Amino acid sequence: MRQDFLQDFAELSAIGAVPGGGVERQAGTAADGRAREWVAGWLRENGFDVLRDAVGNLFGVLDLVPGAPHVLLGSHLDSQPAAGRFDGAYGVLAAAHAARHVVDAVRGGTLTPRVNVAVVDWFNEEGSRFQPSLMGSSAYVGSVAADAVLGARDAAGTSVAEALTAIDALGEATAPAAAAYAEIHIEQGRQLERRGVDIGLVETNWAARKYEVVVHGVQGHTGATVMEDRHDALLGAARIVCLARDVVDEFPPGRLLTAVGRFTVSPNSPVVVPGEVRLSLDVRSLDPELVEQAHALLLRRFSEVGAAAAVEVEVVRTSLRASRRFAPDLVDLSEAVAAEAGLITHRMPTMAGHDAVALNTLVPTALLFVPSVGGVSHDVRELTADADLLRGVDVLSRLARRLVAQVPPD
Amino acid sequence: MRQDFLQDFAELSAIGAVPGGGVERQAGTAADGRAREWVAGWLRENGFDVLRDAVGNLFGVLDLVPGAPHVLLGSHLDSQPAAGRFDGAYGVLAAAHAARHVVDAVRGGTLTPRVNVAVVDWFNEEGSRFQPSLMGSSAYVGSVAADAVLGARDAAGTSVAEALTAIDALGEATAPAAAAYAEIHIEQGRQLERRGVDIGLVETNWAARKYEVVVHGVQGHTGATVMEDRHDALLGAARIVCLARDVVDEFPPGRLLTAVGRFTVSPNSPVVVPGEVRLSLDVRSLDPELVEQAHALLLRRFSEVGAAAAVEVEVVRTSLRASRRFAPDLVDLSEAVAAEAGLITHRMPTMAGHDAVALNTLVPTALLFVPSVGGVSHDVRELTADADLLRGVDVLSRLARRLVAQVPPD
Repeated sequence: MRQDFLQDFAELSAIGAVPGGGVERQAGTAADGRAREWVAGWLRENGFDVLRDAVGNLFGVLDLVPGAPHVLLGSHLDSQPAAGRFDGAYGVLAAAHAARHVVDAVRGGTLTPRVNVAVVDWFNEEGSRFQPSLMGSSAYVGSVAADAVLGARDAAGTSVAEALTAIDALGEATAPAAAAYAEIHIEQGRQLERRGVDIGLVETNWAARKYEVVVHGVQGHTGATVMEDRHDALLGAARIVCLARDVVDEFPPGRLLTAVGRFTVSPNSPVVVPGEVRLSLDVRSLDPELVEQAHALLLRRFSEVGAAAAVEVEVVRTSLRASRRFAPDLVDLSEAVAAEAGLITHRMPTMAGHDAVALNTLVPTALLFVPSVGGVSHDVRELTADADLLRGVDVLSRLARRLVAQVPPD
Repeated sequence: MRQDFLQDFAELSAIGAVPGGGVERQAGTAADGRAREWVAGWLRENGFDVLRDAVGNLFGVLDLVPGAPHVLLGSHLDSQPAAGRFDGAYGVLAAAHAARHVVDAVRGGTLTPRVNVAVVDWFNEEGSRFQPSLMGSSAYVGSVAADAVLGARDAAGTSVAEALTAIDALGEATAPAAAAYAEIHIEQGRQLERRGVDIGLVETNWAARKYEVVVHGVQGHTGATVMEDRHDALLGAARIVCLARDVVDEFPPGRLLTAVGRFTVSPNSPVVVPGEVRLSLDVRSLDPELVEQAHALLLRRFSEVGAAAAVEVEVVRTSLRASRRFAPDLVDLSEAVAAEAGLITHRMPTMAGHDAVALNTLVPTALLFVPSVGGVSHDVRELTADADLLRGVDVLSRLARRLVAQVPPD
């Protein structure tokens, strides 16, 4: 099985490959479509039925116990631009191999299933092309409406419905009902590597508040408009980037994280004072109270920046992802199966969002991490060692086997 | 003639029109091509021969004195994105009408020409799509090589040669030799309006230093990369925008101007710490010494920003536009003809760059301004009153007549 998994992962990683060992398969693009087709082909070859729901999620199902709900195993195939090949795709392929392992055990007579197993590729986890992120999993748990998903548009004006239709990824199937969900993912941080740990066991997720901010100024000539007549949207937006960084230092070290990832300037010409900047900002902490304190501080300072730079700062959207504990008995179970495999584990929160964070609002959910070399992620240099990949598949397989036999956990 | 000019200007302004009264005709685009064709048609209808040189400049010539050099009258038809309809296009059409006025006077026997008159649309004055700005006029005076012009590429990778070929704007004609150059342009500032002046007479141009800066960081996950592991290119670039503004306050009020107009973030996704930002910065002053002082300050602070934000700040290109006096006898002559027309004039520098700044390095050059309402420019709300447009055409016509009769000035 080991060589089998690595060969499969190499094939999957070749789809949408970019120089430096990465991939670019943003949600609903042709490359995303080819990766989905590759996984769908794998699932069919291994006896699974392939279903597509109405928001672009892809499922592989196989009825072991007719009428019973499913242990869902999955992650996402979409990527950030110029991204690594592990983020999401590793979890989908690990889920497929773990599900096959369960099916083989049932057919071999070594496992008596109480529920079914299914594999899932959640549509658009990344949120780089279409917002919000965690799109397919949020629709599955009911926190986002299907209409809102299908109507979301990318920067070029293409809707999710159009993009999914173009890659033949829009279906009409009812998504399989979940009894539990398990996902394995690369850590994307350096804690496991620094501690020499094999598997991270996620106990809770950091709270996150996300903002979409538009700074409105007045377009002008950079050479002919004197400073006191300017309403420079870029200056206002740059001050926001700086204050978002500086607010971190007003909290205890390591407790608050902020970043601006997207920052789009109009009209973006060398000699034009920018008239508008649109930016995406996020604020994260394990402690929801700190997120709210930072929220209040930021809103006050946005106003100050607007007044000082003679621009208008408009918060067009803000959303809160609450901090929530993962099912303690699934953390215990994951710890137990990892120990059976002789692996070192570490209980930890997840700073980043994952489809498991959405599923955790609906059903008992397990989220496992494998180490990331140097903590690098969302970059082509993202790397997890082969041995760590295989340990993760092993632990997920063991966990899936126990979940299929025992759900709800004893 | 008055109604005639305004009707022509309305027709020209309809080409590439955008909501709010503006135009978008970036250099070498289809809209720029249609504007050029419209002007070429006007020139042919009025008896001029139309020539295209090898870098996209368009000329209308008519031999009054065979073999003699030309008084060139012109400006540029290209625009910034979402720009006003007056910037450049007004000057080209005013030049065409003034040249026709000269020809009519010669044919009517009221003017004896010593030299010829010609109209010019300089390719790519704005520099929004292809850099550098003042491209066609700089090639004409020999400060930029034709090969460098034709090989310059826009953000999509299209070269000037390809863009000009696509709109049939690339020719093989030898550009007409200039004895003098005159250009009328909107002021793009508020000095004329504030002083109640009809015509600005440019005596000198501000010095300008332009920078292209790339900030190199490391792409990462905004949620999973702790602050001390970040190399955030956007944070470094935002600090540069702020320091470019703040350095102005270290000089006497009104003496130094800085701006960042273009600012492009990669990969520009909501949850990715940006790996690279490319920005265009300019620094201007009437006093070249202040520009050099600011240059030294900025270079030092770029290094400080790089160290503090753990990014690399690379100045990939910097260029200096020197401050230079315009021919004093042409300023005197412009003042005299404006006085004949009963107009109020004001001698002033130009803060912005113009094709006349390039021509002024080669031949005696006059640059005249008409008032801009509110000083707004590089924006669809750019406006000059009809009466001011017509006063400008009148003064340029009178100046052209004197230049054709008297060059070199007595």
